[in-house]
Amino acid sequence: MSEPKVLILMGSDSDWEAMSEARKALEDLGVATEVHVSSAHRTPERTGKLAREAAGRGIQVIICGAGSAAHLAGVCAAETELPVLGVPLAASDLKGLDALLSTAQMPAGVPVGTLAIGKAGARNAGLLAARIVARVDPEVADRVRAQRRKMAEEVEAKDAALQARLGSKG
Amino acid sequence: MSEPKVLILMGSDSDWEAMSEARKALEDLGVATEVHVSSAHRTPERTGKLAREAAGRGIQVIICGAGSAAHLAGVCAAETELPVLGVPLAASDLKGLDALLSTAQMPAGVPVGTLAIGKAGARNAGLLAARIVARVDPEVADRVRAQRRKMAEEVEAKDAALQARLGSKG
Amino acid sequence: MSEPKVLILMGSDSDWEAMSEARKALEDLGVATEVHVSSAHRTPERTGKLAREAAGRGIQVIICGAGSAAHLAGVCAAETELPVLGVPLAASDLKGLDALLSTAQMPAGVPVGTLAIGKAGARNAGLLAARIVARVDPEVADRVRAQRRKMAEEVEAKDAALQARLGSKG
Amino acid sequence: MSEPKVLILMGSDSDWEAMSEARKALEDLGVATEVHVSSAHRTPERTGKLAREAAGRGIQVIICGAGSAAHLAGVCAAETELPVLGVPLAASDLKGLDALLSTAQMPAGVPVGTLAIGKAGARNAGLLAARIVARVDPEVADRVRAQRRKMAEEVEAKDAALQARLGSKG
Amino acid sequence: MSEPKVLILMGSDSDWEAMSEARKALEDLGVATEVHVSSAHRTPERTGKLAREAAGRGIQVIICGAGSAAHLAGVCAAETELPVLGVPLAASDLKGLDALLSTAQMPAGVPVGTLAIGKAGARNAGLLAARIVARVDPEVADRVRAQRRKMAEEVEAKDAALQARLGSKG
Amino acid sequence: MSEPKVLILMGSDSDWEAMSEARKALEDLGVATEVHVSSAHRTPERTGKLAREAAGRGIQVIICGAGSAAHLAGVCAAETELPVLGVPLAASDLKGLDALLSTAQMPAGVPVGTLAIGKAGARNAGLLAARIVARVDPEVADRVRAQRRKMAEEVEAKDAALQARLGSKG
Amino acid sequence: MSEPKVLILMGSDSDWEAMSEARKALEDLGVATEVHVSSAHRTPERTGKLAREAAGRGIQVIICGAGSAAHLAGVCAAETELPVLGVPLAASDLKGLDALLSTAQMPAGVPVGTLAIGKAGARNAGLLAARIVARVDPEVADRVRAQRRKMAEEVEAKDAALQARLGSKG
Amino acid sequence: MSEPKVLILMGSDSDWEAMSEARKALEDLGVATEVHVSSAHRTPERTGKLAREAAGRGIQVIICGAGSAAHLAGVCAAETELPVLGVPLAASDLKGLDALLSTAQMPAGVPVGTLAIGKAGARNAGLLAARIVARVDPEVADRVRAQRRKMAEEVEAKDAALQARLGSKG
Repeated sequence: MSEPKVLILMGSDSDWEAMSEARKALEDLGVATEVHVSSAHRTPERTGKLAREAAGRGIQVIICGAGSAAHLAGVCAAETELPVLGVPLAASDLKGLDALLSTAQMPAGVPVGTLAIGKAGARNAGLLAARIVARVDPEVADRVRAQRRKMAEEVEAKDAALQARLGSKG
Repeated sequence: MSEPKVLILMGSDSDWEAMSEARKALEDLGVATEVHVSSAHRTPERTGKLAREAAGRGIQVIICGAGSAAHLAGVCAAETELPVLGVPLAASDLKGLDALLSTAQMPAGVPVGTLAIGKAGARNAGLLAARIVARVDPEVADRVRAQRRKMAEEVEAKDAALQARLGSKG
Repeated sequence: MSEPKVLILMGSDSDWEAMSEARKALEDLGVATEVHVSSAHRTPERTGKLAREAAGRGIQVIICGAGSAAHLAGVCAAETELPVLGVPLAASDLKGLDALLSTAQMPAGVPVGTLAIGKAGARNAGLLAARIVARVDPEVADRVRAQRRKMAEEVEAKDAALQARLGSKG
Repeated sequence: MSEPKVLILMGSDSDWEAMSEARKALEDLGVATEVHVSSAHRTPERTGKLAREAAGRGIQVIICGAGSAAHLAGVCAAETELPVLGVPLAASDLKGLDALLSTAQMPAGVPVGTLAIGKAGARNAGLLAARIVARVDPEVADRVRAQRRKMAEEVEAKDAALQARLGSKG
Repeated sequence: MSEPKVLILMGSDSDWEAMSEARKALEDLGVATEVHVSSAHRTPERTGKLAREAAGRGIQVIICGAGSAAHLAGVCAAETELPVLGVPLAASDLKGLDALLSTAQMPAGVPVGTLAIGKAGARNAGLLAARIVARVDPEVADRVRAQRRKMAEEVEAKDAALQARLGSKG
Repeated sequence: MSEPKVLILMGSDSDWEAMSEARKALEDLGVATEVHVSSAHRTPERTGKLAREAAGRGIQVIICGAGSAAHLAGVCAAETELPVLGVPLAASDLKGLDALLSTAQMPAGVPVGTLAIGKAGARNAGLLAARIVARVDPEVADRVRAQRRKMAEEVEAKDAALQARLGSKG
Repeated sequence: MSEPKVLILMGSDSDWEAMSEARKALEDLGVATEVHVSSAHRTPERTGKLAREAAGRGIQVIICGAGSAAHLAGVCAAETELPVLGVPLAASDLKGLDALLSTAQMPAGVPVGTLAIGKAGARNAGLLAARIVARVDPEVADRVRAQRRKMAEEVEAKDAALQARLGSKG
Repeated sequence: MSEPKVLILMGSDSDWEAMSEARKALEDLGVATEVHVSSAHRTPERTGKLAREAAGRGIQVIICGAGSAAHLAGVCAAETELPVLGVPLAASDLKGLDALLSTAQMPAGVPVGTLAIGKAGARNAGLLAARIVARVDPEVADRVRAQRRKMAEEVEAKDAALQARLGSKG
């Protein structure tokens, strides 16, 4: 892995537990990442700068994770031509429903591709970013294909284990 | 009315039908307003500038109306020390539930005072802004008190009209 | 800190765990508070009296925290010309969604500025009250500005810590 | 019908279209009503007075209809020992979900019996009030029983009409 | 306490933890209760019989507690002329929202007075039943009034305790 | 078509507009139906009788359509060993969400197979009932297979029409 | 038990804790099952094959359990003429509301009978499958009737136990 | 425009009114599209084939629009290595909430980037697809930048028009 191709931003360091799944998914596919804590509300200037300058540094995709009234992905999408993916996090009593609507319901003109709430969404943001990076990097495309095969094999292995367990009970 | 004391922002000119209620409420209480269409996502720089420079121009309160993933109030609250009020608008199929959560569920540190969805909320944003301006302007305070009395009288008049109607039916 | 400028009310003493965040935020900004347990439903007369007499005692803002069918803020807004802020609390199985709608969806004429559910909302109620008090007290305005800078610095410090951690892992 | 046994309150005269169903249901069962427009927020004193004095005037049940952050039933229940029934109305973009939660989710100690949103709930509030009045008035109890029989007969008549229609098509 | 005046039904014995609050509230007010586990779905005949025969045994009010698709109160209301109160319980992953809608949204003609989800609602069902029993029993009316005074005094005592605690910290 | 194999019940004749889709789907597949208006709440005895006696008359499946607090399917499932399918209808301001939860969230022990809200669900209830009847009637099985092929062909025809339209615009 | 009559599929082996309730319910009624882990998204081909070939192997009903955006039941219903039942599981922060809507709201033409979220729904899926298998197997029909009687007796036993407990306290 | 770079699929031709916004957005940015009606449930084989063969035909992104239990995007994401974007459509009484959750809440391993409900989401799907195509096509990148500038200018023009209108009223 050389230069980072995906910029991962999150509004708070407490988001790292979930968002590290995005990084892990990308590293497993050989895609280098750059990670920052930067808030849409607490550090708006710095967030805007990170988003505006990302394309110039070779970044291909920006992933934003945030909870509650999750504005981070929308704020970044407003400042860049890069594709922006948003991961809603369950940071409030509403368990991520607030973050999901704040991320997905963007008005026409400024697109954010939204993933599922929490860790599953963070992992999928990494996988979707890899599918986008694969547009320009055939090696990443190969690894994405391999990951899909491996995932199918894992399901089959789990089924085999279940058959063994049920058989032994029968 | 001389200098504007309240800045009213909205993300789209289609929001004006609702947001004009905020202006009307303030004008009725003798508080001058400044109104702009400026989007958190489509014109982020201009929106930031309007929010940052508002205090310097004598503005006391900022009211933001937006629908869908309504980030306008949050973005403004991040750029000013003024009190910011948010009006969620019913601009999507989710009928303002998305805008309500995007406006109200702000993370700790950057406060937005959120009103009801739609016209009722826009009118109340004007009334709440007037109560804030009344901190420094006793004449506005007097007019707020008068408005409350008038509102009570209107309810009583409506009750009297109902009694008359029911009586005539009896 | 001399005379209280902000009145904090809550419907039950079990609300204090969340609502103490509002007081702490205000004290950190040098704004004195007065705090009472007073219920919209269990002690309606006393609540009405507290709200009606607040302005006369020099109070500038009233903050109300309540859960479930949270009527406290609305009841107070009906009895005063002061700005009233409402903090919905997660006191029922619906996790604060009931309190959020009961507080935010006030009908036209009686405004309540609603914050987020729970501790984040309580803290933001304190910060928004301070922004209102700052209309008449330039020292509070200075402290609000300093708080915002400090908050940004904390985010940057957290990002630096994350970089250190990730670097050490790389 | 002589003295009113049920007091029907509503927050706005626009609620009358729905709330007249409550009155109609009661009149059909021979229970006289008293109806007032009185708002929890716009005329709090008058509302409190109406609720406090109801028992003394011979009222047996209070029915309150309100929309949005519907506090009227809760406010009345706080001021009387009479049973209070609440009808949530669909007065906002949230279509009565806000009013339902604001009415039903009352905290322990101050009970409100909540009916369905809108006209069906208003009619049922009248029927439930009649069932309560029937505790002390055997004639009303007889009429409630007759109403139930008639309702069953109407369903059977509708089924017969449907059979006729389907038969003629077959 | 002599003859039971209130019949408390619940769909499952796991509902007793919440529903015992209804019984306790009634016993504290001197109203005797009869309690049964009887399911709308698992023992429909027995449930219908209990509801139909209640009035003949001197019961004045029926309280039904149930979770999930909570049909118990509706089924009982269909079989009696007595007032029926429903307590939605949080027995599924939807945390009582399902039970609240299944209980409150009854169609026109068959009324159920719905209380809040869970223990608070169970306690309030008891208190509302007492207010109904008080229509025919002046002693119960006196005790309801005393309970309301006591409740107000408890809030005031909690406020005094908070003042003491805050004073000692100041 | 000879003897009815599917019993279609609905709580009100206003449900017929949606529920006729179930009948139409079944008739198109050669399955005869019996249809009744019968309410869980307004005619509980008759509804119970229809459900209890259905198996004895050769009915194989019961379909119940109801809105609001939709108890009809649950009440029938409690009275029969036949498979019961429930169609939630959008009869209230909550647009069928209440009926969906009241139908789907049945407690363990009394199963209801729930379809989508409204006409689509009514049509699918008919198709699912046909798949069940097909267990004992090979001709129905053949028609179900043919219906699936026809449905696929319709989608392909619509795609061809779209291609033609887009081509003519290009 | 000889040949499996019901195929139980689940998207992940973590679904087994809930879905084993379906198998247990069926085994208690003497209906043999076949169980597989197979994902709509991770092993689409294998899932399609399992659904397509089920009827040929003598399967009468397919039960699918899945969480989050639960597509498994819909995907199977698209590939078979057998009746398909779906069990939404609480696998995400939205606690099964996502899975319920993804399973129940199927478009017209491809029916899925949806049960409740989680274990209760899994058990009911087994019971409903047994009611369908009972169309062709009179012994299963007998056992379903016996299960219903036993269930009623259990409720009555629980009521007796409660009476004993309350009596001993009184 | 030469070869299609984006494949737009929709479950029904009634989705075209919304989904044509995606095509229009892409055509305005010089990106050719291929459009098909193909259903996840009614034509599963054809849908799988379209998704599997897309990459081989030079497609870079797949956009799927569907309503209700919207499985189309998930089914396609399971069959391709290309990035898949999902547009939830408001095709049922739940107004797209069902489609939003069915599209966004994909389990870990199979990513779908979800846009807003309805036309705004369809337009944004087109814009996000263009941002992805721009990874390999610098001319598209230039046009995306121009589109963003134009969008900002339109907001400014609307603000100027509003100022003119308000000025003329003043």
